[in-house]
Amino acid sequence: MLLERIRNPEDLRKLNQEQVKILSAEIRQELIRTVSRNGGHLASNLGVVELTLALHRVFDFRKDRIVFDVGHQSYVHKMITGRLDRFATLRQYGGLSGFPRREESEYDCFETGHASTSISAALGMARARDYLGEDYSVIAFLGDGALTGGMCYEALNDAGNANTRMIVLLNDNEMSIAKNVGALSSSLTNLRVSSEWQNAKLAVRRFRRIPVIGKPVYNVMHAAKTMAKTALVRADSIGFFETLGFEYFGPIDGHDVPGLEKTLERAKKFNGPCVIHVKTKKGYGYEQAEERPEIFHGTPPFLVETGDRMEKPDCPSSGHIMADTLMDMAEKDSRIVAITAAMPMGTGLDHFGEKFPDRMIDVGIAEEHAATMAAGLAAAGMRPYFAVYATFFQRCYDQMIHDVAMQKLPVVFLLDRSGVGGEDGRTHHGLFDFAASLPVPGMTVLAPCDTRELKQMLRWTLTQDGPVILRYARAGDDLTAWREESFTPGKWQRLRKGTDLSLLCVGTMARQGLRTAELLREKGLEAAVYNCSSVKPLDLTTLKKIQGMPYFTLEEHMRTGGFGEYVREICADKGFREPRACFGVDDQFLAHGSHSLLMKDAGLDPETLRDRIAAKMKESR
Amino acid sequence: MLLERIRNPEDLRKLNQEQVKILSAEIRQELIRTVSRNGGHLASNLGVVELTLALHRVFDFRKDRIVFDVGHQSYVHKMITGRLDRFATLRQYGGLSGFPRREESEYDCFETGHASTSISAALGMARARDYLGEDYSVIAFLGDGALTGGMCYEALNDAGNANTRMIVLLNDNEMSIAKNVGALSSSLTNLRVSSEWQNAKLAVRRFRRIPVIGKPVYNVMHAAKTMAKTALVRADSIGFFETLGFEYFGPIDGHDVPGLEKTLERAKKFNGPCVIHVKTKKGYGYEQAEERPEIFHGTPPFLVETGDRMEKPDCPSSGHIMADTLMDMAEKDSRIVAITAAMPMGTGLDHFGEKFPDRMIDVGIAEEHAATMAAGLAAAGMRPYFAVYATFFQRCYDQMIHDVAMQKLPVVFLLDRSGVGGEDGRTHHGLFDFAASLPVPGMTVLAPCDTRELKQMLRWTLTQDGPVILRYARAGDDLTAWREESFTPGKWQRLRKGTDLSLLCVGTMARQGLRTAELLREKGLEAAVYNCSSVKPLDLTTLKKIQGMPYFTLEEHMRTGGFGEYVREICADKGFREPRACFGVDDQFLAHGSHSLLMKDAGLDPETLRDRIAAKMKESR
Repeated sequence: MLLERIRNPEDLRKLNQEQVKILSAEIRQELIRTVSRNGGHLASNLGVVELTLALHRVFDFRKDRIVFDVGHQSYVHKMITGRLDRFATLRQYGGLSGFPRREESEYDCFETGHASTSISAALGMARARDYLGEDYSVIAFLGDGALTGGMCYEALNDAGNANTRMIVLLNDNEMSIAKNVGALSSSLTNLRVSSEWQNAKLAVRRFRRIPVIGKPVYNVMHAAKTMAKTALVRADSIGFFETLGFEYFGPIDGHDVPGLEKTLERAKKFNGPCVIHVKTKKGYGYEQAEERPEIFHGTPPFLVETGDRMEKPDCPSSGHIMADTLMDMAEKDSRIVAITAAMPMGTGLDHFGEKFPDRMIDVGIAEEHAATMAAGLAAAGMRPYFAVYATFFQRCYDQMIHDVAMQKLPVVFLLDRSGVGGEDGRTHHGLFDFAASLPVPGMTVLAPCDTRELKQMLRWTLTQDGPVILRYARAGDDLTAWREESFTPGKWQRLRKGTDLSLLCVGTMARQGLRTAELLREKGLEAAVYNCSSVKPLDLTTLKKIQGMPYFTLEEHMRTGGFGEYVREICADKGFREPRACFGVDDQFLAHGSHSLLMKDAGLDPETLRDRIAAKMKESR
Repeated sequence: MLLERIRNPEDLRKLNQEQVKILSAEIRQELIRTVSRNGGHLASNLGVVELTLALHRVFDFRKDRIVFDVGHQSYVHKMITGRLDRFATLRQYGGLSGFPRREESEYDCFETGHASTSISAALGMARARDYLGEDYSVIAFLGDGALTGGMCYEALNDAGNANTRMIVLLNDNEMSIAKNVGALSSSLTNLRVSSEWQNAKLAVRRFRRIPVIGKPVYNVMHAAKTMAKTALVRADSIGFFETLGFEYFGPIDGHDVPGLEKTLERAKKFNGPCVIHVKTKKGYGYEQAEERPEIFHGTPPFLVETGDRMEKPDCPSSGHIMADTLMDMAEKDSRIVAITAAMPMGTGLDHFGEKFPDRMIDVGIAEEHAATMAAGLAAAGMRPYFAVYATFFQRCYDQMIHDVAMQKLPVVFLLDRSGVGGEDGRTHHGLFDFAASLPVPGMTVLAPCDTRELKQMLRWTLTQDGPVILRYARAGDDLTAWREESFTPGKWQRLRKGTDLSLLCVGTMARQGLRTAELLREKGLEAAVYNCSSVKPLDLTTLKKIQGMPYFTLEEHMRTGGFGEYVREICADKGFREPRACFGVDDQFLAHGSHSLLMKDAGLDPETLRDRIAAKMKESR
């Protein structure tokens, strides 16, 4: 196999174009094999095989620098920079990360995970190079989706002024560019000058005002407009970047290595900011992924032959249950509107959008705008629900405080994927949200122990008038110990009786707490288990009641700034007994791997918790 | 006086244009009188007198909605919406806020304070109106500076797609639009087609490469380019907004009421997103402010006749001392670079920029980009120092975690205006930064008690290799009790001996703690006072040493997620004695007014602290 002979990018440069083609095919096979086993980002990596090879043949990334936006498209880069032998460990505990990691290789110069950071980072590097009088190329490699993030605009604006030598490599895989860059492009201007269009638009607007009849006609016209925009995108992209002070190269076929190399060589020599616009096909070379690229963007393990997922989840995700409940609520309450920042599938809101296409707003990768837009909706009488991964919620921290909480607006933040994540690793855990939200005056902070409680909490949010943070894990399983009743904030439920100690569990830790209690019994300790799903407000009555014996707090969150610290401070203030110990993630960034292994790393698995609790109980005797 | 007869905007509509002129003059007098006494934002409000009157004559803001971006330009709006009689209380404790407040008036529909939120909020409102089948106009009123924030781009992109009826009112006061919108506009494209320009640019680039000689020539050319850009801005703005799907009206003279009214009427009837481009003059009608608008943007009390400040500060600000120290460091270490997000004067970095124009980067109102760009600089060998108000630091929360801390990069965040702020009020306090930074692994969190320590800490940052948060208050005074020595992280200093209790004071609370100790002596209690300027890491040796007597923590920060909670949790973990009580801001948003009155409100002034501590000491006896 040719691929195995590529120990580093220097070996790449010795190949002729025919060999590069063979290598590309081998790489695709390896990508499909590994991702079908380990899960991961397939479609985007299949799309950038030739582009990555061309980059490494033209540049030397031991001195040149490349920042992968988001970083999910760095698999090919990893394979050909000395990591092929470890590629089968991709995304597994102790194995290669699914994102660039500086510790892994000298070829990874900047770590990513969240979107839209690459131009900022690359501009910083380019400036550093100029300051230090060094000489190398800097490349920001981003997809068209990342361009919807406001940071990109801030960075492009700054880079245009700075006028330093840097390359923005836009990987346009035709997924969302029509919508994204399209809106920014001059397409509408071009359309507007045509009088046919002008008349059509007016006619459509008139139609739209007639309910029932008007809407479908409008939709057809809207689709036509979108198509027209797409056709114009290529020409428009030139204008967009040139107005920002960038030289424009492209568009280039991203699967034609000789063509790519020629353009990359030109860009390499260009002495200023430039953009290379490359058109690639997501999923290229694997039929299933080409046909359904959105399914193969991030995928669990699958069967290579059919593209079908290896194992069906035994229960629907929290997101789907959330969306189904929200749909049910939206049927009765026309004020409800759902918001996503480019994650309709991940959050489950695609379900909602099918039923209520008009009441589901996808703002692009734009969490800041999403939160403040939600505040505007709420201020004018609507009930917005913004579903966002806990880790991306970090992007709208100020908007949550300044625009939502300060005005006491009824915006509900639905934090999916909260707690310890899994194979995506350290950039994707949701471990800071309590610390972000508990200090905020007027904020209600909830963490259901399971999806039945999630449903109750969702319904409860409509009965009150302030901001709410509702955090839940991806998995939508149910606790058998849970009795169905309606949710009341500030009220905890005892899931298990015990006479020696109590475990105060928040969110998903209720399940771990119950297991820990079983294990503690073997040690002769009877632990009561509480579901502390109402984090702010706390249940002071229960906190007072359990004072007779030692208790512990358990959470999937950083210990600092978390639930336990909050309980401890309030108990100290009230003169109540404080937790004997607070268990959360100690001062470290957790790696990637299966949830259970990472929980073990954090000392939060039932076995370790049993030992830690038993040791503390001994101390206190 | 005509102004006194305007009880509400309806009275405005009865005036003829001659009366409007007289009224404008009266409003300017009132603005100058009040701001010269109370301090505040003068230049921007003088610039929007006619525009605000025209808005209120055309729209009815009991049903129509206007969102003031930042909100500092809402004074005229306040005067003519029934708040003239309270206008003299502007920005004073218990008086009118300097920003829109929904509690103050039905005419204030959305609260602001931080920049670039208005288009998002307005779009949310416009969508809510459409959903609810209501009929009113929605206006986002923003200056050209706010447009540099990425949120605006996210919102414009979304609004262009949404195609709903809304007005973006761009108040272009010629301060920064050349730089901001200019970079985005097609000006450079236009310039580029001219071969003269092309040749000149190449010549300049060549010159730039020759050090010493090249730079001044480059500067001249750069200035010429900026001028050319400014001239082209008008034409370019049209293109910029039209490509985003907005109808464009303008540019209009912002001091010509009949002209403004005509355009506003047209925009009011337009059934889609539109932008009105208004040109105003900052400081219009007050010579001193017209000449030095940057001084009168936000001003302390001043003498109307001369424009001179009423009282010279008796000590330089922390920012100036920071900048002077950083300049001194930068002289010896060429890796140091300073970054600001459109606040060179507020942060003191204008000093730095005068001496090192090349090593001072102003990115515009773009904190997110600033933080990640700093990460890029650090990853490539530089030492970036990002000076930012603590409240605006909230904007780059995710970037601090994801781009800086996760990679352990030596970026130093200099958080100015931390703690309880003053007259700017609740959107401008810096009370969340410990909660944001303490849970972040690898972060060093420091809060100097005075500027001598600030200097030592700054110098120390160069000796280490990780991220640092350095928070300080605006006032740059010195503590007499402070002995000069070099800073060591994880080491606290005792400022006062005491035998009954200890006060652990963080940052500015060291001064308050010393005063409190004096007052406690009157109550027969001898308090030791510690300067706990190293928050993460804490000083475990001292925490162990002081266990013999009760102690209290004092901080200008939310109690939840703050220093005290952090001390308590770590002490509980180590088996040390915990604080008897933690004093910080309890669960509330503080209002506006003088620092000392707000501290009293929070229960953090020495008198209240004395009583709270004495009561707790009694409890424990």
